[in-house]
Amino acid sequence: MMFNGHNVRISSKAKIGQNVRIGDNSVIYDNVIIGDNSTIANNCSIGEPTSEFYSSAEYENAETVIGANSLIRSEAIIYAGVVTGSNLETGHRCTIREGSLLGNNCRIGTLCDLQGHLEIGDYCNLHSSVHLCQHSKLGDYVFLYPYVVLANDKYPPSEEVIGPEIGDYSQIGVHSVVIGKVKIGANCLLGAQTTITKDVDDFSFVVGSPGKRLSDVREITSEQGEQLYPWSARFSRGMPWKSD
Amino acid sequence: MMFNGHNVRISSKAKIGQNVRIGDNSVIYDNVIIGDNSTIANNCSIGEPTSEFYSSAEYENAETVIGANSLIRSEAIIYAGVVTGSNLETGHRCTIREGSLLGNNCRIGTLCDLQGHLEIGDYCNLHSSVHLCQHSKLGDYVFLYPYVVLANDKYPPSEEVIGPEIGDYSQIGVHSVVIGKVKIGANCLLGAQTTITKDVDDFSFVVGSPGKRLSDVREITSEQGEQLYPWSARFSRGMPWKSD
Amino acid sequence: MMFNGHNVRISSKAKIGQNVRIGDNSVIYDNVIIGDNSTIANNCSIGEPTSEFYSSAEYENAETVIGANSLIRSEAIIYAGVVTGSNLETGHRCTIREGSLLGNNCRIGTLCDLQGHLEIGDYCNLHSSVHLCQHSKLGDYVFLYPYVVLANDKYPPSEEVIGPEIGDYSQIGVHSVVIGKVKIGANCLLGAQTTITKDVDDFSFVVGSPGKRLSDVREITSEQGEQLYPWSARFSRGMPWKSD
Repeated sequence: MMFNGHNVRISSKAKIGQNVRIGDNSVIYDNVIIGDNSTIANNCSIGEPTSEFYSSAEYENAETVIGANSLIRSEAIIYAGVVTGSNLETGHRCTIREGSLLGNNCRIGTLCDLQGHLEIGDYCNLHSSVHLCQHSKLGDYVFLYPYVVLANDKYPPSEEVIGPEIGDYSQIGVHSVVIGKVKIGANCLLGAQTTITKDVDDFSFVVGSPGKRLSDVREITSEQGEQLYPWSARFSRGMPWKSD
Repeated sequence: MMFNGHNVRISSKAKIGQNVRIGDNSVIYDNVIIGDNSTIANNCSIGEPTSEFYSSAEYENAETVIGANSLIRSEAIIYAGVVTGSNLETGHRCTIREGSLLGNNCRIGTLCDLQGHLEIGDYCNLHSSVHLCQHSKLGDYVFLYPYVVLANDKYPPSEEVIGPEIGDYSQIGVHSVVIGKVKIGANCLLGAQTTITKDVDDFSFVVGSPGKRLSDVREITSEQGEQLYPWSARFSRGMPWKSD
Repeated sequence: MMFNGHNVRISSKAKIGQNVRIGDNSVIYDNVIIGDNSTIANNCSIGEPTSEFYSSAEYENAETVIGANSLIRSEAIIYAGVVTGSNLETGHRCTIREGSLLGNNCRIGTLCDLQGHLEIGDYCNLHSSVHLCQHSKLGDYVFLYPYVVLANDKYPPSEEVIGPEIGDYSQIGVHSVVIGKVKIGANCLLGAQTTITKDVDDFSFVVGSPGKRLSDVREITSEQGEQLYPWSARFSRGMPWKSD
């Protein structure tokens, strides 16, 4: 019921790798390259034309790359000019706009809204409904939870749009917001509903709106007294240090 | 323009009740059972295959039940293994993942994101964009407002995922977050933007981040001095105690 | 790949202007009027029938107007009874319910959820995922940022649903919530994560939950000491005072 070529449209200018499956009702636009063994589920748009398409007769799609071994779930809209690494996995109805560069082994959750012209490292995990502004930048192993927003404009509206930068291994809790040209260090934990408008040092545990540093994350312990951070010592699902 | 069988695909292994209407472009997968008099609007996916479908040739859809007299609005994605009671009504673009068990007379709003393996009682009302984590549990008559999040991981990431439990008649305001293995009692009111990481007693009125108990909900009065809670005494729309 | 008439359904009772393009898989229902030079992208539903359609054989679509020179991006659902001005631009997957009246030159972002029976002035800009309740009202030049919610029910549930009113030129930051019959004045700035349940005077700069007035917006300066508000003096992109 999914890979029957039902109502599928694939541009003759697209390059489809070996063992690629394309779901019903999906569209693959010009200049899209899909890596081997990838799956595009139903109702996806890959290489979605940018705004200029609607106004210019000379419009041509930028090259768009979906890495090998990826799984794009249904209803995804991935714009022309997006380049992803291999092993990308998305939820449903994500929107990834032009100029987004994603590393390898990333997960982009259902309803995520990536505004384009941004950079994401390897092994990043965006849960559902994460909103990333233009010019934001994530390191490697960054985990963002539902309704996290990175925003680029502290005193809106303005033309100055410099997004936040989030360091390796940092975790940002549900409904938190990071605004403007700020740098969150590596190995940080921002609690739910936190608001950040200033730089945050490596290993900081921050909560509140405005965000306040509570402690070093290495001081956080479980009820059993175990040190919880850096989390890479206790969590390995989907990570390269996972033992089989 | 909606029930013309246009581009509809229905598995021969699905069981469609009497007087069921299926909208254009909708897909009904294997082992879906749709109760009598239900309506599935356009562009829906009912019995959406789980992750294993993409990787395993032996994959088979779990039984999926949409109760009688339900209305599923367009663009809904309801996974294989979801079981709902009768009189379900959904908004557009909701996503309900596998292992979600819903009682009777529930409403699941537009863009809701139910992560699966969760339980919802009768007469629950989820407004738009509610996010429920795996292993969360709602009693009966629970109302959740836009962008409410139930999350199961206080110090993420972790493999310990035990979700919140919300008692009967409780109401959770816009943008509030309940995290971890906590129990919200019955008849509670959580204000907008509240963050909860600890148990909350029955009849509590809680606001803030972190949430603080302001009073007993029975002390809340309207400007005219009327007692507002328990709300069941003053609100009956769609409720079983409604007089016609 | 978009305007080939592929799987398009247009009611014979719709009126389509000159130079209108309708994307693949889109549906234009009865009594829709689309102004000249407008573009409806793929997978849109324009004139989506209201709830009564599902239950009444006599149901007839209310007149629905999409103004001239509009661009409706893919997956939009615009209900019967919506009336928009000209030059409307939407993102993907917005939902605009019946009785929404929009002025000219508005932008409604990806995933916005407009609950209907509401009014929006001219040149309003709703970023992604803005949720407007029924009976809310925006003046002109109002900018709302991601996950802003206008809600109409302070002590839910209730039948009293009177929405907020937002004055001209006001800006509401990410994740902020305005609840109930309140009036936000003109030229206000509400910071991220603000909660408002009381009236706010013109030119107020408000932050926090509950919101507190920090200063007059005219006292906000950039790091270089420039006055930032009213913002109309320093920002003109897409505005009528833009010089070419």
